[in-house]
Amino acid sequence: MGKVFTQASVSLDGFIAGPGHSGFDKLFAWCRAGDVETPSEDPERLIYRTNAATAAYLRELMETTGALIVGRTLYDMTNGWDGKHPGGLPVFVVTHRAPEEPVESETPFIFVTDGIESAIKQAQDLAGDKRIGIGPGSTVGQAINAGLVDEIRVDLVPLILGSGTPMLSGITEQLDLQNPEVIVGQGVTHLIYCL
Amino acid sequence: MGKVFTQASVSLDGFIAGPGHSGFDKLFAWCRAGDVETPSEDPERLIYRTNAATAAYLRELMETTGALIVGRTLYDMTNGWDGKHPGGLPVFVVTHRAPEEPVESETPFIFVTDGIESAIKQAQDLAGDKRIGIGPGSTVGQAINAGLVDEIRVDLVPLILGSGTPMLSGITEQLDLQNPEVIVGQGVTHLIYCL
Repeated sequence: MGKVFTQASVSLDGFIAGPGHSGFDKLFAWCRAGDVETPSEDPERLIYRTNAATAAYLRELMETTGALIVGRTLYDMTNGWDGKHPGGLPVFVVTHRAPEEPVESETPFIFVTDGIESAIKQAQDLAGDKRIGIGPGSTVGQAINAGLVDEIRVDLVPLILGSGTPMLSGITEQLDLQNPEVIVGQGVTHLIYCL
Repeated sequence: MGKVFTQASVSLDGFIAGPGHSGFDKLFAWCRAGDVETPSEDPERLIYRTNAATAAYLRELMETTGALIVGRTLYDMTNGWDGKHPGGLPVFVVTHRAPEEPVESETPFIFVTDGIESAIKQAQDLAGDKRIGIGPGSTVGQAINAGLVDEIRVDLVPLILGSGTPMLSGITEQLDLQNPEVIVGQGVTHLIYCL
């Protein structure tokens, strides 16, 4: 079964967004800070331009990921990515209530109303041996609390935001991780922690 | 003039202490996670046992640091380190009011009542070309806000605390840092950011 990971661009003070959803330009500046091109699954919207180490990190993750899980808040905030999630993968949306009308979209969106555990199981069934990416948002804390996350990938950005949305919230127990794998990018340090 | 730095052992979710001042055993486990010995300035209390990379990092910092600055809260919480700060250096204590009685102690404690800027200037005058270490606590945010910190040293520990005391607080403006120097320890990743 595919491993479950979460990944986020995080400021040095631990935020994935500044106050009032600010700071994204700086949090994602590393995606365009080098000269090695890595097309995303939606190259019209995004071609990563990074150093070679980050390019290898991104390529490996894209090639091995089979499905994504997000919370309903993010889905609504992005208006369901206007029907096309940039990851080019099936997206499971954890929600209390599925939309009453069927959603017409290029990306397959699967609404899961019976919790994060069920969403992960369904995503793994679909993705085979490929990985499941989860988050950002409160779904991450729920999955970590349930012991269902295998890997935390932090793209640590040399930036202090002061306040905002923390990467990890709602964690109910202290948790030991293993020493991370460290990949030095340009404008970012990738840290891969196994749980 | 000596550079001003702050340093702390920090959990992956950005805390230097867990709830109710918990978590210190895990936050500082890296100090005893290897077999290369580095005596602290007070080897009866602490001999670091780390891998070779961390030992070099610690030695260099000890050899080049000339004075420390702390806030009054920490000074009171530790009861003035019972008269002997483990750093073996003069310690400037930023406070609203100096103790009325002279403090008898092995460590020279200098009480500064006119703010962080004054404390840094006095520490630099005393330390010559050597570095000034500042923090932890609200003094760090004050010094960063005043543009007086040259370096942030994060000893990032593979640990999630869930809640607690953040390393960086009271920062009033978003701040860009440079790509860090990365030193891979055992049970810790040292990240040195220049401002």
